[in-house]
Amino acid sequence: MNALDEITESFSRLPGIGKKSAARIANYLLKSDSVFMQRFSTQIATLQQKIKPCSICGAWTENDPCPICSDLARDKSVICVVEQPQDVSTIDSSHEYHGLFHVLGGVISPLEGVGPDQLRIAKLVERIKEGNVKEVILATNPTVEGDTTALYIQHVLQDLNCTVTRLASGLPVGGDLEYADKLTLARSFRGRIKI
Amino acid sequence: MNALDEITESFSRLPGIGKKSAARIANYLLKSDSVFMQRFSTQIATLQQKIKPCSICGAWTENDPCPICSDLARDKSVICVVEQPQDVSTIDSSHEYHGLFHVLGGVISPLEGVGPDQLRIAKLVERIKEGNVKEVILATNPTVEGDTTALYIQHVLQDLNCTVTRLASGLPVGGDLEYADKLTLARSFRGRIKI
Repeated sequence: MNALDEITESFSRLPGIGKKSAARIANYLLKSDSVFMQRFSTQIATLQQKIKPCSICGAWTENDPCPICSDLARDKSVICVVEQPQDVSTIDSSHEYHGLFHVLGGVISPLEGVGPDQLRIAKLVERIKEGNVKEVILATNPTVEGDTTALYIQHVLQDLNCTVTRLASGLPVGGDLEYADKLTLARSFRGRIKI
Repeated sequence: MNALDEITESFSRLPGIGKKSAARIANYLLKSDSVFMQRFSTQIATLQQKIKPCSICGAWTENDPCPICSDLARDKSVICVVEQPQDVSTIDSSHEYHGLFHVLGGVISPLEGVGPDQLRIAKLVERIKEGNVKEVILATNPTVEGDTTALYIQHVLQDLNCTVTRLASGLPVGGDLEYADKLTLARSFRGRIKI
C-alpha cells in the first residue's frame, strides 16, 4: 500500500466520500500547488486544538465564550435549543433569529442508550435560572427523537417562569402538496394558522 | 473566519465536494480521534514528496521505476497508452491486461492549447524503438479529443514495426439499447464482430 492508496483510504473514511471520489481527490491533490497542501495539512493537524465547544452554549468556537454568547447586541432573553453544534451556524446564517443558543449535544434515544442525563439539559436550566430568559425555542429536528426530546425539555422547564415554544413544522416553502408525505401533511393541518 | 470556516473552505476546493458536504466533513473531523487526524495531516503534507511520476511510463509511483515497469513477470511486448496517471490503476485493477503502460499526460486539444508536443509522445516512440514492442494499444477516452489523439499517435507510429490497436467502443455491458446514445449505437454497428 503506497502513499497514494493510504491517502485515498483516509479520504474514503470521511462522510459522503466513497472509494472512487476519494481516488479522484487524491489525484487532484497530487497536482495541487504545494502552498495549499501545506496549509491544508496544518489546518487538519491543528483543528481540534483550535476549535472547542463554548463553555456556555456548547457551539464550536475558537474563543471561549463564543462570538454569539459574548455579542452584546444579541437578545439575551431568548434561547434557541438545538441538537448539534453545527445547527447553530445553520440557524444563525438564516439571519431570522437574533437571540442566544444552547446545544444539547444529541437527542434522547433509548435505542442508542442516550438518556436525558447525557444531554446538556441541566446546564440549560441553570442558564434560565441565572439570566432573564423570557422564551426558550425548541429547535430539535422534527423526528421522533427530536420531538421526544422537545417534549421532555418542555416538561422540565414548565415550573420556570419562561415561555417554551417549538419551531413550526409543515410543508417546506417551494414544495409541492403532491410530494409531501402523510406525516408532514398531517402536521401542517394541525399547525394551520389564521390568515 | 475561524479555523472551522477555513478548513471547510479548503475541503470545498476538492473535486465533488460542495459547501454543505465540506461543512459536514469539518464537523465530522472535530469528533474524530486525534491519531487519525495527525496521520491524515501527515499524509497530505508528504503526499507530493512521496508520489512522483515514473520516469519510464509516467504513472504515479513511490519508487522509480514504478512497480509495473520493474515487474519482470509483465509482458514487455505490449504497451497500453492512456491519458492520465490514474487510468493506469483503473485498467490494472481489471486484471485483463498484463503488459506495460504509457501515460500521455493529457490529450490533443486545440481549444485548451494542448498540442502533441506537450504530451509524452516522443518518449513513447523512444520506448518502442528501444524495446521489443510488438503492439501498442491506444486506450485514450472515446471522446473527440481522445479519438483525435489516438489517430495522431497511430500516424506517428505507422513506420515503426509494431501493431497499433484501439480499445473497442460500443454498448456497455449490462446496458440497454433504449438508453444508448446515437453515437455509441453507430459505433457499435461499425465495430460489430462475427460470432
